[in-house]
Amino acid sequence: MKFAVFGAGRIGRMHAENLAKRPDAKLVYVVDTKPDAAKGLAEPLGARQADAQKVFSDRSIDAVLIASSTGSHADLSIAAAKAGKAIFCEKPVDLTLEKTDLCIREVEKAGAPMFVGFNRRFDPSFRALKRRLDKGEAGTIEQVIITNRDPGLPDLRFLATSGGLFLDFTIHDFDMARWLLGEEPVEVFAWGAVLVDPRVKTEANDIDTAMILMRTESGRLCHINNTRRAVYGYDQRIEVFGAKGMLRAENVAPTTVERYDASGGAADSPYPNFQTRYAPAYAAELDAFIAAVQKGERPEVGPRDGRAALLLAEAAMQSHRTGKPVSLRRTGSRRAGP
Amino acid sequence: MKFAVFGAGRIGRMHAENLAKRPDAKLVYVVDTKPDAAKGLAEPLGARQADAQKVFSDRSIDAVLIASSTGSHADLSIAAAKAGKAIFCEKPVDLTLEKTDLCIREVEKAGAPMFVGFNRRFDPSFRALKRRLDKGEAGTIEQVIITNRDPGLPDLRFLATSGGLFLDFTIHDFDMARWLLGEEPVEVFAWGAVLVDPRVKTEANDIDTAMILMRTESGRLCHINNTRRAVYGYDQRIEVFGAKGMLRAENVAPTTVERYDASGGAADSPYPNFQTRYAPAYAAELDAFIAAVQKGERPEVGPRDGRAALLLAEAAMQSHRTGKPVSLRRTGSRRAGP
Amino acid sequence: MKFAVFGAGRIGRMHAENLAKRPDAKLVYVVDTKPDAAKGLAEPLGARQADAQKVFSDRSIDAVLIASSTGSHADLSIAAAKAGKAIFCEKPVDLTLEKTDLCIREVEKAGAPMFVGFNRRFDPSFRALKRRLDKGEAGTIEQVIITNRDPGLPDLRFLATSGGLFLDFTIHDFDMARWLLGEEPVEVFAWGAVLVDPRVKTEANDIDTAMILMRTESGRLCHINNTRRAVYGYDQRIEVFGAKGMLRAENVAPTTVERYDASGGAADSPYPNFQTRYAPAYAAELDAFIAAVQKGERPEVGPRDGRAALLLAEAAMQSHRTGKPVSLRRTGSRRAGP
Amino acid sequence: MKFAVFGAGRIGRMHAENLAKRPDAKLVYVVDTKPDAAKGLAEPLGARQADAQKVFSDRSIDAVLIASSTGSHADLSIAAAKAGKAIFCEKPVDLTLEKTDLCIREVEKAGAPMFVGFNRRFDPSFRALKRRLDKGEAGTIEQVIITNRDPGLPDLRFLATSGGLFLDFTIHDFDMARWLLGEEPVEVFAWGAVLVDPRVKTEANDIDTAMILMRTESGRLCHINNTRRAVYGYDQRIEVFGAKGMLRAENVAPTTVERYDASGGAADSPYPNFQTRYAPAYAAELDAFIAAVQKGERPEVGPRDGRAALLLAEAAMQSHRTGKPVSLRRTGSRRAGP
Repeated sequence: MKFAVFGAGRIGRMHAENLAKRPDAKLVYVVDTKPDAAKGLAEPLGARQADAQKVFSDRSIDAVLIASSTGSHADLSIAAAKAGKAIFCEKPVDLTLEKTDLCIREVEKAGAPMFVGFNRRFDPSFRALKRRLDKGEAGTIEQVIITNRDPGLPDLRFLATSGGLFLDFTIHDFDMARWLLGEEPVEVFAWGAVLVDPRVKTEANDIDTAMILMRTESGRLCHINNTRRAVYGYDQRIEVFGAKGMLRAENVAPTTVERYDASGGAADSPYPNFQTRYAPAYAAELDAFIAAVQKGERPEVGPRDGRAALLLAEAAMQSHRTGKPVSLRRTGSRRAGP
Repeated sequence: MKFAVFGAGRIGRMHAENLAKRPDAKLVYVVDTKPDAAKGLAEPLGARQADAQKVFSDRSIDAVLIASSTGSHADLSIAAAKAGKAIFCEKPVDLTLEKTDLCIREVEKAGAPMFVGFNRRFDPSFRALKRRLDKGEAGTIEQVIITNRDPGLPDLRFLATSGGLFLDFTIHDFDMARWLLGEEPVEVFAWGAVLVDPRVKTEANDIDTAMILMRTESGRLCHINNTRRAVYGYDQRIEVFGAKGMLRAENVAPTTVERYDASGGAADSPYPNFQTRYAPAYAAELDAFIAAVQKGERPEVGPRDGRAALLLAEAAMQSHRTGKPVSLRRTGSRRAGP
Repeated sequence: MKFAVFGAGRIGRMHAENLAKRPDAKLVYVVDTKPDAAKGLAEPLGARQADAQKVFSDRSIDAVLIASSTGSHADLSIAAAKAGKAIFCEKPVDLTLEKTDLCIREVEKAGAPMFVGFNRRFDPSFRALKRRLDKGEAGTIEQVIITNRDPGLPDLRFLATSGGLFLDFTIHDFDMARWLLGEEPVEVFAWGAVLVDPRVKTEANDIDTAMILMRTESGRLCHINNTRRAVYGYDQRIEVFGAKGMLRAENVAPTTVERYDASGGAADSPYPNFQTRYAPAYAAELDAFIAAVQKGERPEVGPRDGRAALLLAEAAMQSHRTGKPVSLRRTGSRRAGP
Repeated sequence: MKFAVFGAGRIGRMHAENLAKRPDAKLVYVVDTKPDAAKGLAEPLGARQADAQKVFSDRSIDAVLIASSTGSHADLSIAAAKAGKAIFCEKPVDLTLEKTDLCIREVEKAGAPMFVGFNRRFDPSFRALKRRLDKGEAGTIEQVIITNRDPGLPDLRFLATSGGLFLDFTIHDFDMARWLLGEEPVEVFAWGAVLVDPRVKTEANDIDTAMILMRTESGRLCHINNTRRAVYGYDQRIEVFGAKGMLRAENVAPTTVERYDASGGAADSPYPNFQTRYAPAYAAELDAFIAAVQKGERPEVGPRDGRAALLLAEAAMQSHRTGKPVSLRRTGSRRAGP
């Protein structure tokens, strides 16, 4: 499969490098609003800089990987669909429901396969946990607890344009919750706080800490906790409790080395950031996308999943703003889900 | 110190046996509404059955340990205070705020030292965690997560008279939350569910599963999760996250034995129930009570702590009933605390 | 059961205090070559100082607990046996095979039940491991690995009279090896070294570090490693490998608290010394002794076990001295074991 | 760098695939005594089948990777050295000291860089442990304990020609011991046994279980334990004990998922075999080889390391045969090491 990558930033680079290592894929073009950045990424990997026009008109290109700025995801996806390309789009599809819905309509009308990059579903530990849940190892699911803590505050300028904690960061947890609960959440309650750095409020009008509860129609409960700064690393854990027991996935550390000295026993820290922790997940989601396209199957995670997570994030924002739980029963439960 | 124990049931027995092992205490009387039960417990431990009258009029008795039915806690505490005894009272002081307040007034008027048995504060792991929090090991506290899962559903008849999950079971977590957060919670949001057994609803008008959020004035967040049935044992964990890191206390298992075989690696299960898990805590809270009385100090946990936990439980009940968060700002924050 | 304790030192005190807590035992006398020490221990526990003569002639005394200096163990045991007392004797029975054999003969002739205090067999973790081995969880045993590391060098004067590392310290491991291997070791190879402190050699003519291999007739292999100084605590682990898997017992820590901060993740240290680590084992071996005496059964660990461990320690000393493996096939395998 | 791979078997395939993924290397030829096997491996990776003659005469080839049968390692290495190629040679250089010495002489005479594939030095956990040892985290090293257990018995025909357990399997541990001890072992004591399957003796004249002790001139001690069948997976652990504490590297599991159910708590098994466990090590040793060649540096592990490990394996064989420890002081300590 021949690929063009949109976006030569941090995520675009990672995907481009993953493509370059694969025997079953070929990176042909890199597109970026800064052509030099595109060129700098493309050439050492044996690819070329190009513009979108070139990509969409080159019939040899099978697929696009969209890792450009969030605001361009939907438009590029629609254009790619119309050009007959398979689409791998970083999350989120868009920060608004309207544009997301437009994208879904157009992509589905064009019949293009579209994958949305909720990479955590492809983390080896989380995926093994999910497989074991599906085999019934925990019995009927009753509680899901998701811990998602960033190692350190991002640049405040980034935060100011990110869409806010729920849309930019918790969006992953909303997707994981849907995936793990086995039922759509129908009610959301969220509290945010600014505990890490007051400038998150004053300069980015955002929050840096949150706790969320969600429940499903049958009463299953889910808790999510977030912070933008965990000094011990990138804290990524899930716990699922059910009638037959509990499955949990603890943090992943680079090594199994333990030190025991006069001050106690110490294990290795968790991986320090998403690039290291989720490196295998980023590779595995490409596997899944390529396999689905080659087999002509609908990708495992699509834009309707992106939409459903967006709905939950919007509900959390509203709950945080109003101080009340938000029901998705009318607007959400019927329309959410792929 | 000479003791009388009220209540010859499961908890009364445990306390009586702990007293009997101590060189610094002497169990003299056991009182129970069933005199035979009192006798059966008292005599093998070298003590005697008695009635309340006898206890309160015997001037050689220094202290009473009240482990009788919940409804009698306040009255017995008041009577003991008037008789000049030191009081160790099992939680809760009472299921109502009115009676609790009456008890606090009368006990304080009499100047009697009164300890309320929130035993978890004396669990070696939780206490070490708290000591390390106080030393600043986690920095300023931002999030507290408490997991409290009973191993199996109690008798439905017990549940029907227990006061309900929040008052009977979560009350421990409300106390732990206050202790660990370092600030009074001022807002409570709670969802309950019946996921374990529908008879919990139909026969006991109670819930068996809950998730709770609380927050303090400065924005610290706390999550509690509960269930009445964890098939893998008595699941008792706490996690405190702060600006400098995280402290957590995992479950305690009877042994460190691990098995590795063709089906994987397996560690020992957590202790199966509160009697085994908290055996050291029950002994240590007696240490603390006796030491405080002997030194003439106010016991570490008193009836005002009982009252504050009760307020939170009532707020949780109200939140669960109304579907809305409940603020304790006016009624609670000024009056709560010891 | 009425008890006299011989020896008011560190171990004698611990046993005396354990006896004082039991409802089924009564500490009546404490005997020590220093009567003041005996008195100081006895009286707060409600017992009296006495001399050996008094103990052996008091027909109300059922049992003696011998925790005096090693050189007196055998003589006191013989005297106690002749006086019709049940005997709990700290390890070792004696540092010489001759005196050990004499003691076995006299005690058996008198028909007195005699228990030798190999407390590690009664550690909850090691005992659970052994029970699971016996149930076949590891299949046929092939390898046993024992880690026994003291937290810090004892007083050099103690070392000089201790009998040496193998007799004083590794003796516990020789007993554990016999217990876990399920077959008698028939060959021993040992290397010692002075790595901790050169004065161990110059002032105590001893070693502070050792590695040992043993094998049984059928080829099962055992490794023991020792040191006198593990700065991280009292390192006590066992691992048993068999045809169906591995069972291991890791160190025991006082709490389950874990800290995660910028320097990594840290668990609690193992217990710091034998008194804390093996406190439950010391209580449990008293249970076993008292139960055996009351039921008229042979105690689980007896002087023939003490003799068998002594044989292995002597073989290790000889191997260390000669640089060659030492066979116990002729002298040992037929005579060792209870 | 342009590569030819010798050997299209299991290990050759892994190395060839690793080369094919690298942007800084190009696999040009695959050589095998079975040309079809070479072709089957080469072509999907964009390379060609060739014979040795072709490789050595093609001046564009920079390096050879020798993963053919053990008996051909030395001859191919010598031929490659004479042809001016850099050499990556799978362990062992040869099963005999004579041929190993000849290889070292010829390769050094030709000035060719030669790397010997002791991949475990490049395992992320072991390497992190070594780095921390070198930083002094454990203080002066006193004890090293290496656990190396294969998941299941190899084909008996393979065993019969493998050189035996010590040369084929423990050879890795001898290399690790040298690397970790920080001093050359000068004495070896080894016991082998046939506990897994009697046909290991009758059909392959080998052993399947072993325990080994080694010591260095200053008295540092090392224990190695081996088996050919650990039903729970590929058991690969190291523990280093020193004056300031202990560092250990536990097994590595594919996921961090834990299950807690009515039968206990269960973690994931270790990786099942060397291909999965050491996949990152195989990639990292190629990194190290390529980097060394490109910088003109001597590779980190060379044929003199292969020779030193071989000496220890031969000493273990001799000890196992004679039942006595074997000293390497005269023959070994002066000649061993790179």
